[in-house]
Amino acid sequence: MTVEEAQKRILSHTVPIMPPESVGLLEAWGRVLAENIVSPDDIPGFTNSSMDGFAVLANDLSQASSANPVTLRIKGTIAAGHPSPHSLTHGEAYKIMTGAPLPEGADAVIQSEWTQITGENLVLALSPVHPGQNVRRRGQDIQQGEQVLQAGSVIKSPIVGILATVGRKNVMVYRKPTVAIVATGDELVEPGEELEPGKIRNSNTFALAAASLAAGADPIILPPVPDTREMISQRFRQAASADIILSSGGVSIGDFDWVKNVLSAEGSLELWRVNMKPGKPVAFGMLHNRPFFGLPGNPVSALVTFELFVRPVIRMMMADDQWQRTILRLPLYEPFSEVHDRRHYVRSRLVQDGDNLYIWPYKKQDSAVQSSWIGAEALMVVPENSGPYQPGDLLPVMLLTGDVS
Amino acid sequence: MTVEEAQKRILSHTVPIMPPESVGLLEAWGRVLAENIVSPDDIPGFTNSSMDGFAVLANDLSQASSANPVTLRIKGTIAAGHPSPHSLTHGEAYKIMTGAPLPEGADAVIQSEWTQITGENLVLALSPVHPGQNVRRRGQDIQQGEQVLQAGSVIKSPIVGILATVGRKNVMVYRKPTVAIVATGDELVEPGEELEPGKIRNSNTFALAAASLAAGADPIILPPVPDTREMISQRFRQAASADIILSSGGVSIGDFDWVKNVLSAEGSLELWRVNMKPGKPVAFGMLHNRPFFGLPGNPVSALVTFELFVRPVIRMMMADDQWQRTILRLPLYEPFSEVHDRRHYVRSRLVQDGDNLYIWPYKKQDSAVQSSWIGAEALMVVPENSGPYQPGDLLPVMLLTGDVS
Repeated sequence: MTVEEAQKRILSHTVPIMPPESVGLLEAWGRVLAENIVSPDDIPGFTNSSMDGFAVLANDLSQASSANPVTLRIKGTIAAGHPSPHSLTHGEAYKIMTGAPLPEGADAVIQSEWTQITGENLVLALSPVHPGQNVRRRGQDIQQGEQVLQAGSVIKSPIVGILATVGRKNVMVYRKPTVAIVATGDELVEPGEELEPGKIRNSNTFALAAASLAAGADPIILPPVPDTREMISQRFRQAASADIILSSGGVSIGDFDWVKNVLSAEGSLELWRVNMKPGKPVAFGMLHNRPFFGLPGNPVSALVTFELFVRPVIRMMMADDQWQRTILRLPLYEPFSEVHDRRHYVRSRLVQDGDNLYIWPYKKQDSAVQSSWIGAEALMVVPENSGPYQPGDLLPVMLLTGDVS
Repeated sequence: MTVEEAQKRILSHTVPIMPPESVGLLEAWGRVLAENIVSPDDIPGFTNSSMDGFAVLANDLSQASSANPVTLRIKGTIAAGHPSPHSLTHGEAYKIMTGAPLPEGADAVIQSEWTQITGENLVLALSPVHPGQNVRRRGQDIQQGEQVLQAGSVIKSPIVGILATVGRKNVMVYRKPTVAIVATGDELVEPGEELEPGKIRNSNTFALAAASLAAGADPIILPPVPDTREMISQRFRQAASADIILSSGGVSIGDFDWVKNVLSAEGSLELWRVNMKPGKPVAFGMLHNRPFFGLPGNPVSALVTFELFVRPVIRMMMADDQWQRTILRLPLYEPFSEVHDRRHYVRSRLVQDGDNLYIWPYKKQDSAVQSSWIGAEALMVVPENSGPYQPGDLLPVMLLTGDVS
């Protein structure tokens, strides 16, 4: 099964979590809108000046120049937030601040730089302006009744601003999924505990919890569980309080690999093994009515399969249908000679050299090598049965953004 | 002053916040390491199998093939976490699981797929293996005493895993800066309040708070303040409990633009006006011993100047010296004909068309137009006095990642 087939199959089981909830603007950041947002007002709500200068009638200044300035009488000053009760007529100007409402009668603003105040109430205009110049018309950005945001939009910081602009203090968003994480294996001890012979420290739980945070979900860490059918089954029932269940380990063909077994018996095993490297033994199914991922125990494989299969499900449950990573095509910085019959996701750095950005794979791609993750910014995607590649060859690259900017 | 000069000047005032603090692994995600991490053990800590199969002596199988299988006596089974007390000698095999310790005497693993169990205690090996095949040697990834992570590394999810692997439950990280946010302007009302004539809703406070979250900082929202010198000065004193102070509005040349005035009188104005569009009137200085940014009041300008000047300071205060955005050079999707004497940061989308990724600027680039932010994924950087550009022309692009993946 290819990565795309597996993604399609997995996502066919995924719908946004209902019902949505109402949250404040800052909590809404990073969530997905669950309502269409219509502006109750024109934005801007009044015609205003985009410059510090003088509100005028453009027609008065049609002949104005430095050599032949036009004198206008200053009728007053209009500050932002303080509309003038009076209107303006020929021969008059109002000193006006950026964002202040244009007075009745005025149709343009001449910026301060092109004026010169002479005497107490007189200003010289040194340049013509055209009607509408330096003026923002009421409703120019958004019109009353206009839909400004669509349900399904991810709320980035500019959108938080737009929501405030149209008067929203709270907004309906889709829930964040909770992700229960269970590492399996007799060999696991917790960080901080003593390492007896044959034991290793449980690292997947923490890495997968951090990856869940990065994807926008709320991780729930459960204690690791030894390789017995009963203990695994019991822990998975506990995990079913979450929206998504992740396990790591126990999905290969060993005698004590109970995860698929429990999944088949108590839920359904929908797929096992994907034609990828690392991460081939990944399993997916439904367990206690929840999407269940049996990720490989190898730390690198666990995170790569999380990226390709779990992250899309988290994004879709949050109602973000843009779950696909942006794929760049970047030139290789050094030769890459490994050829495999499985699609290879290669931990890589980005290198800026002169004007160009290159992709630079780490040398050690063995899936046991965690240290090649340290500076990894991207996964280079090497198609099955392709290569070797030379410097400058273009290869698709998934940027691992969002996991801290 | 160019953007680069302004960045350099601003960052010359910026150092990481001291002292660092000790936090748990999940809280460490997204922070910057404040200590070098040395592994107390070899990783892996023992030589182990990378496959489900049989631990063997490679030499026993040198002539093995499907036509001419070699028979070995199965001495037992080794599961992960359970080292064998016995060793292995010629003619013997141990059934072994992925991650289980290799028994004394064995030097290779033949994977299950190349074996066949015959009778109760006998297995046929159908293929030769070389010494070390399917074996992960002790210390192969990380050696005892080796420095695995350097102070200054951003803790992404794989690094959380590596910290757990080397036994850390807590780790020293740099603090997140707090960012106090003050919008200024008589025209501002809060979202949810009634819009009287000439008023607009305060949106910058919320957008800048969300942008601070996205950059990794903790925002502190202060109430907006009207355009009086006293009120502004007082609010800025209040804001000085934070590590960074942001204001929006009041930095232009209007009669009521008090921000620079207060900054000069009570601190130091280090720079004002940068040759960029939008965002030219941005001001920076030190106030009450804190970096102070007087961002423009225009919502688009406020966020663009945040991105170019405030985000780098937040990252540097967290000790992340990779504060520069990755710059891609992408081909234009449509013509871009605006030419300006200021560097232009153009809100844009990315478009995948066939094999290529393009940059596609929004049509409305007026800085009053908030709606062009809605789908913006990147800022296209148009050099001063350059253009017009045609489709296919390459332009530098800053991806706005991190503000939600």
